[in-house]
Amino acid sequence: MADNNELTPEQTEALLAVRREIDRLDGEILERLAARARCALRVGEIKKGPLYRPEREAQVLRNIAEKNPGPLSTEGVQRIFREIMSWCLGLEQPLKVAYLGPQGTYSESAASKHFGGAPELQPQQTIDDVFHAVEAGATAYGVVPVENSTEGAVGRTLDLFMSRKVSVCGEVSLRIRQNFMTHAADLSQVKRIYSHAQSLSQCNDWLAHHAHGIPRLPVSSNAEAARLAAEDKESAAIAGERAAHHFGLPILFANIEDDPNNTTRFLVIARHDSGPSGKDKTSVAFSALNKPGAVHSLLQPFADEGVSMTKFESRPSRTGLWEYVFYVDIEGHREDPAVARALKALGEHAAFLKVLGSYPVAAI
Amino acid sequence: MADNNELTPEQTEALLAVRREIDRLDGEILERLAARARCALRVGEIKKGPLYRPEREAQVLRNIAEKNPGPLSTEGVQRIFREIMSWCLGLEQPLKVAYLGPQGTYSESAASKHFGGAPELQPQQTIDDVFHAVEAGATAYGVVPVENSTEGAVGRTLDLFMSRKVSVCGEVSLRIRQNFMTHAADLSQVKRIYSHAQSLSQCNDWLAHHAHGIPRLPVSSNAEAARLAAEDKESAAIAGERAAHHFGLPILFANIEDDPNNTTRFLVIARHDSGPSGKDKTSVAFSALNKPGAVHSLLQPFADEGVSMTKFESRPSRTGLWEYVFYVDIEGHREDPAVARALKALGEHAAFLKVLGSYPVAAI
Repeated sequence: MADNNELTPEQTEALLAVRREIDRLDGEILERLAARARCALRVGEIKKGPLYRPEREAQVLRNIAEKNPGPLSTEGVQRIFREIMSWCLGLEQPLKVAYLGPQGTYSESAASKHFGGAPELQPQQTIDDVFHAVEAGATAYGVVPVENSTEGAVGRTLDLFMSRKVSVCGEVSLRIRQNFMTHAADLSQVKRIYSHAQSLSQCNDWLAHHAHGIPRLPVSSNAEAARLAAEDKESAAIAGERAAHHFGLPILFANIEDDPNNTTRFLVIARHDSGPSGKDKTSVAFSALNKPGAVHSLLQPFADEGVSMTKFESRPSRTGLWEYVFYVDIEGHREDPAVARALKALGEHAAFLKVLGSYPVAAI
Repeated sequence: MADNNELTPEQTEALLAVRREIDRLDGEILERLAARARCALRVGEIKKGPLYRPEREAQVLRNIAEKNPGPLSTEGVQRIFREIMSWCLGLEQPLKVAYLGPQGTYSESAASKHFGGAPELQPQQTIDDVFHAVEAGATAYGVVPVENSTEGAVGRTLDLFMSRKVSVCGEVSLRIRQNFMTHAADLSQVKRIYSHAQSLSQCNDWLAHHAHGIPRLPVSSNAEAARLAAEDKESAAIAGERAAHHFGLPILFANIEDDPNNTTRFLVIARHDSGPSGKDKTSVAFSALNKPGAVHSLLQPFADEGVSMTKFESRPSRTGLWEYVFYVDIEGHREDPAVARALKALGEHAAFLKVLGSYPVAAI
């Protein structure tokens, strides 16, 4: 690599000057990183408790995004500060985070995105195991899929909140890309399409336009779909790029999801929720008597207090005491006066209410 | 999470003061990151070539390690600067890096460790595919295992250097931990031990002391060993933690490798090698006639010039022209006068010589 030799002496001098400037800046950054780390240790001395504060990290990341003058991308500066906070936090002892394994899954990507590179990430075999690790204190935090995921039974995550003493203290969004992969040379040779039901529905428009009439077969996961398609030249799978590589399946059409902003959402769980960050969500679960209009009237306090719902989902109750459990995400922190009043009113009328936690809206 | 409420007003004030100080430092870091990114763009304007310079990155990382005043660990500050350089480098367009997949392997960890979070990592199915991606220009860089690996045929990596037009431009070392995993309740119930031959030899002392007389069965990979052990209560596997989690195998004994500094080495390949960084290695391949003393006399120039060898390996030649090809790593850069003289002398006497590349000694 002799590329410097192709430069004129003036260019070489200019290059050296820029590199000296970079070295000077790096020295200044290093000094400030050290000062920042000493501050983190001081916080630990004052608080004598866990250093990790989800609301504080979210505030720092939002602040960085707002003040970023460029030319680095917002993602770039946020990832760099994510790493800085990660190592400052790990000064006293490394944070332990359980996630739905195996390694290489979206859940692992979500854990890294949220916690940076310093923590010890511990893959678990099931969502139940992640909850157990956190509840038993084996890890301080856990990361589990909760919406729109192709990695496992997401309803299970909601059910577990009913029986386990853990709270939601954060959320993570990951962008998900879907691809159409097959050994067939073109679409006309494809006789069936395998995928997780979630992925099939995420590509509904594309399938209706391009693969009308080809049977769609839902299977347990996208990885399983790719495995099946890899064995048979008349089959195709819809799955992520990693599955294509893993099973050696050529991608015939990339990024076929209907919504280009298609994301999978994960929750960060702990034995406590998060303090207010200024831009928060609160997740609650409640049950209602099976009576027409019962749910609607239970939600009335949110409307009265001007609290927006961002998600509403019902699940059959597993205890038999009620017919359904409702999972609702609302904007705001449970300590915000309007939210607190609405939750109090809901609690007085619902057969059962559990506040799963308040946490910062995903900052990166 | 009401932990702030347990603080005295004085403590709360002290905490707020520290956080204001952190915010101030973050602002200063952000300004310098922006200035650093503008410098990176200037370098691109001057050079009009690829921005990535392995020797320059290695120098920055060594410099950071040397100047780090604490309390952050050397690893911590290096990882943070790794991330800073990664995003500065990706300013114009994201770097593409091929590696031996699937996701979740050590090769992926090595690629992340070397290139940080900004590049687009592309898993490949075989080592051949990684070489092909780099040679064909589909990716600028590739990461392949070369020593002591349990992930694939490492000899294949050496062979491919003979036929492909790629150079070595970097190396990565990863610490590898081996574990004894089984469904058996204790060692007395274990009738056979599966593992990759490399891993078995890495745990030789431990096996001799604790598992004397239990048959050891080499299999194609540690993942395969764990899969076999998971199916049978009388079998055990030696493998990494990820395999234990993936196959649900309890770890009976952790970290059983004989050498606690056991590492796997990976090479970074590109269409060019690296400039001198001040602390470099050079990899060469050469062939010798099958004549007693031939190899020894070929290596004489290294001794004469005071150039140290750090690795010596022979492989049967695949072309039939020579009996053996020798792979040698030496200390120093091919542009260092003593190294250049030694290589010239070697080239004059060897039947064949290929300088695979000079590159910085792994900095992190």
